[in-house]
Amino acid sequence: MIAFGRVTDPLEPVLRFIDDQRTRFVDDLVTWCKIPSISSSDAHRADVRRSAEHLRERLAALGATTTAILDTKLHPATYAEWMVDPNKPTLLIYGHHDVQPIDPIAEWHSPPFEPAIRDGRLWGRGVVDDKGQVFIHVNAIEAFLKAKGSLPINLKMIVEGEEEIGSVNLDDLLREHSERLKADFVVVSDTAMFGRGIPSLCVGLRGIAYFDVTLRALSMDAHSGSFGGGLVNPANALAKMIASLHDENGKITVPGFYDKVRTLTTEERAEIASLPFDEAAWLASVGASAATGERGYSTLERLWTRPTLDANGLNSGWQGAGSKTIIPAWAKAKISCRLVPDQDPTEIAALVEKHLVSIAPPGCRAEVHYLHGGRPYLAPTEHPVFEVAKRAFSRAFGRPTVFIREGGSIPFVRTIADRTGKPCLLMGFGQPDENAHAPNEWLDLENYHLGIKSAVFLYDELARL
Amino acid sequence: MIAFGRVTDPLEPVLRFIDDQRTRFVDDLVTWCKIPSISSSDAHRADVRRSAEHLRERLAALGATTTAILDTKLHPATYAEWMVDPNKPTLLIYGHHDVQPIDPIAEWHSPPFEPAIRDGRLWGRGVVDDKGQVFIHVNAIEAFLKAKGSLPINLKMIVEGEEEIGSVNLDDLLREHSERLKADFVVVSDTAMFGRGIPSLCVGLRGIAYFDVTLRALSMDAHSGSFGGGLVNPANALAKMIASLHDENGKITVPGFYDKVRTLTTEERAEIASLPFDEAAWLASVGASAATGERGYSTLERLWTRPTLDANGLNSGWQGAGSKTIIPAWAKAKISCRLVPDQDPTEIAALVEKHLVSIAPPGCRAEVHYLHGGRPYLAPTEHPVFEVAKRAFSRAFGRPTVFIREGGSIPFVRTIADRTGKPCLLMGFGQPDENAHAPNEWLDLENYHLGIKSAVFLYDELARL
Repeated sequence: MIAFGRVTDPLEPVLRFIDDQRTRFVDDLVTWCKIPSISSSDAHRADVRRSAEHLRERLAALGATTTAILDTKLHPATYAEWMVDPNKPTLLIYGHHDVQPIDPIAEWHSPPFEPAIRDGRLWGRGVVDDKGQVFIHVNAIEAFLKAKGSLPINLKMIVEGEEEIGSVNLDDLLREHSERLKADFVVVSDTAMFGRGIPSLCVGLRGIAYFDVTLRALSMDAHSGSFGGGLVNPANALAKMIASLHDENGKITVPGFYDKVRTLTTEERAEIASLPFDEAAWLASVGASAATGERGYSTLERLWTRPTLDANGLNSGWQGAGSKTIIPAWAKAKISCRLVPDQDPTEIAALVEKHLVSIAPPGCRAEVHYLHGGRPYLAPTEHPVFEVAKRAFSRAFGRPTVFIREGGSIPFVRTIADRTGKPCLLMGFGQPDENAHAPNEWLDLENYHLGIKSAVFLYDELARL
Repeated sequence: MIAFGRVTDPLEPVLRFIDDQRTRFVDDLVTWCKIPSISSSDAHRADVRRSAEHLRERLAALGATTTAILDTKLHPATYAEWMVDPNKPTLLIYGHHDVQPIDPIAEWHSPPFEPAIRDGRLWGRGVVDDKGQVFIHVNAIEAFLKAKGSLPINLKMIVEGEEEIGSVNLDDLLREHSERLKADFVVVSDTAMFGRGIPSLCVGLRGIAYFDVTLRALSMDAHSGSFGGGLVNPANALAKMIASLHDENGKITVPGFYDKVRTLTTEERAEIASLPFDEAAWLASVGASAATGERGYSTLERLWTRPTLDANGLNSGWQGAGSKTIIPAWAKAKISCRLVPDQDPTEIAALVEKHLVSIAPPGCRAEVHYLHGGRPYLAPTEHPVFEVAKRAFSRAFGRPTVFIREGGSIPFVRTIADRTGKPCLLMGFGQPDENAHAPNEWLDLENYHLGIKSAVFLYDELARL
């Protein structure tokens, strides 16, 4: 029999299986999400373990050649692998099975651990962060195995239980199991898409350097009548120091601050400019009335590709109701810098500290404590795997995949990228307003469905890389 | 009999009486100071009344022509008058009999209400603020009456019981008893001398205008990764606003701020320059390392004769230990101005508010609340009574009397000066470091002794004005 006008897609049975099992795939996720695996709560320690074990059993049932519970000092990770052919590429999938706390519980419209479907969404704790995204891969694996009998590449999956408490033992875990976790590529599905229906690969994260700054002037608060005007006021002085850290163009004035900042390429700027950024909605989400920032850059460029220096807190003198007529003994600020490639937090810390100490006025002493830092991240997008991933994602969603970045830092991404040394694909299926860490977390069920297909296309494309 | 080489001082018997009674005058003060007349404490309400009554009985025993307890809404004042001759001038003496709280009690070296003598000082609560200073006048009156049989002028004395809680009913009291309190001059003995042994008349007080400033930008704290660099940070912005309020010479940049500031005369500057100001000790008293301020003025000129603008507090975002990566929703400051003649607090409040609102950057809204104000004070030193008072004071201390000012505000002085409309002599016998509002308050007993003589000379000189 001849098929007229139609080339049979070898993935068609897999895709059909996904369509057929659409409802059951949601049911399976609901079952897992009923386990309250809150990693920050001692009371839920057994639940986190039960969650890891539930996943391990599921993966074992899917014919994983190896499954294991990987213990850490606190919450266990689940591991599984399907070794098909040593000559084929190996993909390591990262996810996490622990979830955020549920407070304030009164604000949930349905019980957080009784996931419910409303308006095309599944509502419950962990449905998108990150159990739903883990199950996108679990279901893709099942679909391949049930519809085709085998996987096109070697797969390894590590699903940790401590992401919501800062992946505190992830580095140890990756080091301890480094042989077992060897792979050619890594895919992380724990981020959000740029917007609904827009397949997005996150290729950049800002780093951070965070400081505690104290400007000391007096040994005690002084009477503002008896001393005001005659000696330095550290609150006035700290304000002046902070004000001096930006010039009239919004550029940071710390000497050497921009030395290692990569200049955006024309292509990068064009790609960012092409995104349907809804600035009004972004502003409205925090009640802001105006977008401002460094001159010469768009809002997205400022958020994703330019470093910042922000006072995160100010603290001096009298803050209660009414008045207290004092010259404060000291003034403090929390100051942090978001960093971009190739800034190094330790180098920036040294520059900022040196500069702040140097601009403290006579009569004041600046003490700067570097609290913590994290390096910025930029994916090696010249590697062909990024084109492959873009294509796979686009095939599922029927729309071009975009490269996006994230203004914040995701510590575990740096950990994984650094520890594995392999290209790391941040292929996330969440939505920017999915309430991941708030009451009423939700998963878009269409995204879930198309996510499974995206994973199928990704495995398939990688096999041919 | 001819007295060779010696003119008999008609005051000699009075002065001799004071020398003779030196110890007993201290004992009498100790008795009064044992009454814990803490006006801020409900538990001591009866004590404050007992203190007023104790004083009234003492004054009645001194032959006052009238004595009275003047009730207010809270604590009573004591009133007495000695009307000698309607053709002679009348002096109104102001003081207060209430005292500060005694916390922290553990820091006292001897019980606050068991006054003890050590190192030529009397230690106890209220010994100098203000019971000792009231008793300087009480003893001077006694000395005149016992040694000479009469007073040289008419005297009226009002000793309130609410000074330490802001003289809350003083204005009502002065209004209610305005007829009775009519006088030609007022003497207030509740301030300190410039230094030990330096007779000082305080002729100027700074005023104040105090503000609560809030700069609002967002409806909630925003994630510094997702928003930092793309919208205004109100902590950065408030720092910049505060920094802009002074120019490079330390001048305040609020338009119109200096319009009503009186220029210092050459004489005023010379008098201030002549004072033995121990700047190092003044700095050391609050642990400051450098005197700074408006260019072109000495420290004392800055403190006494120039207006200020100081942040008394800063409050924004995260202030606890460690870090929180937020763009704060708002930033607040307490800001106050010390004012000098002829600045008006209401006018300054309007100027500051208008200016702050005008310099709030796009995306921010400044809210300025004027909390309270007080007018500056400058004594009418061209009035001859000031020369008279200087001479009287110098006769007792054997050293020229200096005009000094005070950088702070003393609300009751303005109240008295405004309500009586008469020249107000701030003839204080305290010491700058007398711990008036702290543990271990002390009275210099030599000052107490010479203070009584100063009062005697003052009454005597006024009789001949």
